[in-house]
Amino acid sequence: MSSPQVLRIDSSANPTLKRLRELARESTAYREQGQLWLDGDHLLRAALARGLQPTQVLVTEEAMHQRPEWRELALQAPRVLVVPAKLFESVSGLPSSTQIGATLAWAGRAPVLTDVPSVVLDRLQDAGNVGTILRSAVALGVRQVLALKGCAALGSPKVLRAGMGAHFGLHWVEGLAEADLDALRLPLLATSSHAEHELHRIALPQPCAWVFGHEGQGVSEALLARCQATVRIPQPGGEESLNVAAAAAICLYESLRRQLIS
Amino acid sequence: MSSPQVLRIDSSANPTLKRLRELARESTAYREQGQLWLDGDHLLRAALARGLQPTQVLVTEEAMHQRPEWRELALQAPRVLVVPAKLFESVSGLPSSTQIGATLAWAGRAPVLTDVPSVVLDRLQDAGNVGTILRSAVALGVRQVLALKGCAALGSPKVLRAGMGAHFGLHWVEGLAEADLDALRLPLLATSSHAEHELHRIALPQPCAWVFGHEGQGVSEALLARCQATVRIPQPGGEESLNVAAAAAICLYESLRRQLIS
Repeated sequence: MSSPQVLRIDSSANPTLKRLRELARESTAYREQGQLWLDGDHLLRAALARGLQPTQVLVTEEAMHQRPEWRELALQAPRVLVVPAKLFESVSGLPSSTQIGATLAWAGRAPVLTDVPSVVLDRLQDAGNVGTILRSAVALGVRQVLALKGCAALGSPKVLRAGMGAHFGLHWVEGLAEADLDALRLPLLATSSHAEHELHRIALPQPCAWVFGHEGQGVSEALLARCQATVRIPQPGGEESLNVAAAAAICLYESLRRQLIS
Repeated sequence: MSSPQVLRIDSSANPTLKRLRELARESTAYREQGQLWLDGDHLLRAALARGLQPTQVLVTEEAMHQRPEWRELALQAPRVLVVPAKLFESVSGLPSSTQIGATLAWAGRAPVLTDVPSVVLDRLQDAGNVGTILRSAVALGVRQVLALKGCAALGSPKVLRAGMGAHFGLHWVEGLAEADLDALRLPLLATSSHAEHELHRIALPQPCAWVFGHEGQGVSEALLARCQATVRIPQPGGEESLNVAAAAAICLYESLRRQLIS
């Protein structure tokens, strides 16, 4: 690898910083720029661990010059932008500012992979829930996440942070219509508190795709109609309901458990 | 019930509003005031559904005079404070302001209940995670949540919101030391990614108490030493790890599943 280009930037009006600021602060700017914003060393390390190469790194002067391990991390990118802490904060916009961030090329919408165990997200609104589900998916052996139109943007800085690197271990596609799910060629399963079958008693098809829906409204009727079965998680506690990311963790675990014992 | 006292307040300097503002915005003010702040109609309805009576309601003029179902809700309290929307926002402090909130008496630290299936929280930092775990606990049949010193305040407005009413179906105690857990007289189980036993294969004692730890550091060594067993959730996805609230949902589900099939 040729040695990285290291640039110092002192002006907040610098056009590269302006674009980074947009990328870090607007949830869908990555779609126009074709770059994801990875805030903090954890996400950057997670990408590198999966063999992904950042396009550029933004790092504070202090981290670059006084923290050798961060300097080394920064120099993994072909282009390193060194800025005063204030300018870094003006880009990142996080309350407790990280001191390093990176951009990673994003190729845009990918095709749906056939026959791959998947999670389908139907209009989930909360970035924390979406990121947590991505984490659970990758940890529990799911390899693809498909988001229908109306779901929180999977590549947004908030979902990336909540995903803590899960994005780099998954094939993820967003902006899908329900009919696009046909390409999966797998039975769809959804949870519903009114479902007839209990999760722990029903036979689960393997492989399958699990569908999780909007925090308030659940899975849409149209999508439920495409599901092979709906199941409910036993809840002896009565009227209280599970958070959708908690429900997702349970379903993916139960699916995995059946495979492991079979 | 005698008819409620309805007061109109127009000054932001009103001493009652000042105390409510503190209660709604500071995470531990409930401990001094002996009142919990329930923001929004969902929490208020959840408390009423469990037979709990709010001490007072704060409601916007608009909700009180133009939304009959909210007026009816407000009049469930013995004391109703009606304020302009601006003043309500100044108390609630939420970006998308709800229009109704209530206070509920909080009796302070309760004793640990013996022999009751429980969750123990060891220094969890994120209010969203704590609230989500409370929801999972109550839904999956756990009746007591015990927080050690250093955990996010269980009665804080943020944890109450994330709990979505779970608090009212649970016995919860906080500020505990590890030795206080002896009063439980139940075996403790913890998750650890280094544990020898896999969750789906190990025999689980019933009833038991599940211990969940700090988002970054996990369960402390001292507390692990008190556990009868540590288990790991199978994660074929490799290095990625589960969010603690997702891990909690899985463990509580697996515990419940064993009871249901036994």
